[in-house]
Amino acid sequence: MAMTMTTDPRSVIRVELGARSYDVVVGADLFAEAAIRIAARQPRVTRVAIVSDDIVAPLYLARLAAALPEPALEVVIPAGEPHKRMATLERMCEAFAAGGLDRRSLVLALGGGVVGDLAGFAAAVYMRGIAFAQLPTTLLAQVDASVGGKTAVDLDAGKNLVGAFHQPSFVLADVTTLASLPARERAAGLAEVVKTGLIGDATLFELCETHAAELTGAAGAGAAAAGPAAQPLWTQLVARSVAVKAGVVSRDEREDGERAYLNLGHTVGHAIEAAAGYGPILHGEAVGLGLIAACRVGARLGVSAPALEARVTAVLAALGLPTDLEPWLTPEVLTRTGTDKKRAGATLRYVVPAAPPPGGPQVGCRTVDLTPAQLAENLRK
Amino acid sequence: MAMTMTTDPRSVIRVELGARSYDVVVGADLFAEAAIRIAARQPRVTRVAIVSDDIVAPLYLARLAAALPEPALEVVIPAGEPHKRMATLERMCEAFAAGGLDRRSLVLALGGGVVGDLAGFAAAVYMRGIAFAQLPTTLLAQVDASVGGKTAVDLDAGKNLVGAFHQPSFVLADVTTLASLPARERAAGLAEVVKTGLIGDATLFELCETHAAELTGAAGAGAAAAGPAAQPLWTQLVARSVAVKAGVVSRDEREDGERAYLNLGHTVGHAIEAAAGYGPILHGEAVGLGLIAACRVGARLGVSAPALEARVTAVLAALGLPTDLEPWLTPEVLTRTGTDKKRAGATLRYVVPAAPPPGGPQVGCRTVDLTPAQLAENLRK
Repeated sequence: MAMTMTTDPRSVIRVELGARSYDVVVGADLFAEAAIRIAARQPRVTRVAIVSDDIVAPLYLARLAAALPEPALEVVIPAGEPHKRMATLERMCEAFAAGGLDRRSLVLALGGGVVGDLAGFAAAVYMRGIAFAQLPTTLLAQVDASVGGKTAVDLDAGKNLVGAFHQPSFVLADVTTLASLPARERAAGLAEVVKTGLIGDATLFELCETHAAELTGAAGAGAAAAGPAAQPLWTQLVARSVAVKAGVVSRDEREDGERAYLNLGHTVGHAIEAAAGYGPILHGEAVGLGLIAACRVGARLGVSAPALEARVTAVLAALGLPTDLEPWLTPEVLTRTGTDKKRAGATLRYVVPAAPPPGGPQVGCRTVDLTPAQLAENLRK
Repeated sequence: MAMTMTTDPRSVIRVELGARSYDVVVGADLFAEAAIRIAARQPRVTRVAIVSDDIVAPLYLARLAAALPEPALEVVIPAGEPHKRMATLERMCEAFAAGGLDRRSLVLALGGGVVGDLAGFAAAVYMRGIAFAQLPTTLLAQVDASVGGKTAVDLDAGKNLVGAFHQPSFVLADVTTLASLPARERAAGLAEVVKTGLIGDATLFELCETHAAELTGAAGAGAAAAGPAAQPLWTQLVARSVAVKAGVVSRDEREDGERAYLNLGHTVGHAIEAAAGYGPILHGEAVGLGLIAACRVGARLGVSAPALEARVTAVLAALGLPTDLEPWLTPEVLTRTGTDKKRAGATLRYVVPAAPPPGGPQVGCRTVDLTPAQLAENLRK
């Protein structure tokens, strides 16, 4: 990667959504960029609230706050998916009100997907909508949660069942923050990168195959996997992933068509996560297994290339991700796929890899409408 | 009113909002209309949830459910503003999920403003937005809450601080339901009718003046005020109020300009409500006092006609509404006006009656930006 280190390591991807278009900046040391972008907003931002969790806040909150020209309201929530609930949302909004946030204030989400989902949803509904921006600090949040405008909290009945579409004003994906991530979480994020490659960027998929050792730290020692020498590689992976997702979302903001492709691997993935009780298996790990499932079903239906399942399995294994799908294909998991949020009536819309149509957007997926029974049958090895 | 009884007593007002345009139907016996409109929707509605409260449900829920072709999910919440909270919203969404509502389901709000605000907000955020329709059963909800797409819940820090804009698919304002309202609540609703007249319909204002006795039941006995003979009058009042509000909202959906006029009377009104602790004084009663305040401030600033305060006071009194503003102008109320949601920076945007500009939309209001101190000074008698 030495050759790319002499160029400007930042990438800026524009997410085109008409009046709500915004930039995703990917690179190293971007906290000062937050201050610049907030100062540039019109009308002037009256107050900034930084929302973070009690794992990320000790690492980065003081540095981010110091980069801003005026004191920010700091709202720190307990870390973890169990806190992605309405009760946390309510406390967050009460903190906004107590801190004097008004309609021209801005919420800055500093953290992973849970922080982004909660802070984004709070910004979507506080005073019926105020501005927000994201500083995703995990790989999963940088490549997945930071683009698309989806915000949500969980119910007892399922994850992300309550939420809003709320586009950020800007997103700063600072790859230096990936160094503080546990290796297992970095690997889980790479499952989403593999997914994104399958959807629309063959080079991205191949980068995961050829650089697996560097990305997991197998080539060097431990944290070096996300150290300074690897930053240009991470910047490239994140920027390419964001670019694919930004293209899909720009063409289909409210998830009526092509955007469904982004759910590749997620129908079975979510069911596995839910059956495991959220926690034993990470979201990205479950998505990796869901990708294997999608390859298998797609091949059975004659839509996906038969050799793809083995190739996807190999890259996931090289990245240190679980690939043993069979033990997860329990009756409970199969039942849960039938209650997927994407359901409409008796069938569910299932996404499988496929070659893009000639002249169509570079998206290598197709949706098939299956009953839960049909899906279960095609999942059997 | 005999002459209008021979014509079709229904009015249909179209709220023009592009792809999200919808009808408000005003008249008698409209439950069957709900079934017709749901059946006409494309794509087909998979499931209907009727949301109501434990005061309205015993009166109308069974009749509405019987009018629908398929069994509806029934969600009954405790009545009253104290339940307009996130916790109720969460329970409602859990009930939707348990009842199998998907993205093509529809939520039908049967009740007053609290039910409409909660059910509308739940529909706005459940699965990031599903369809909803309103059957407002109180005068306040029919003339005010049913148009505009505003949904919300309360925080400790204030009313309606968390919410969403979510337009209904249709609104059915059935004036026969007004007969079950306590007289005091009907009167409170009439304060919003007077407000709407001041904003954009002189005839509507004059109808309140000339028919005050019929509307309050002073001319007949008790409940006759909303009995069958009075239905054409109520239909006219509600339809005219809806038409004014629909015009304003169509021209300014997201409250950047003219829509602010709909807050006439609400800055001081909300402060009075909050200071009283929500309950001792009804929302409409507080708005009535807020209208007197707006006339006074407007006259002091040379914007409103000096005689208007006395005329507004007279019609409110004739409708049985409180008109003694002075005891409410406490330091607490004045402080609370300064924390109004419409605040932006140091000043608050205050709406006062004014003659419409020649050739402009028929809206008799203007906004003035005042500091809390300036507002307090101009409120003194």
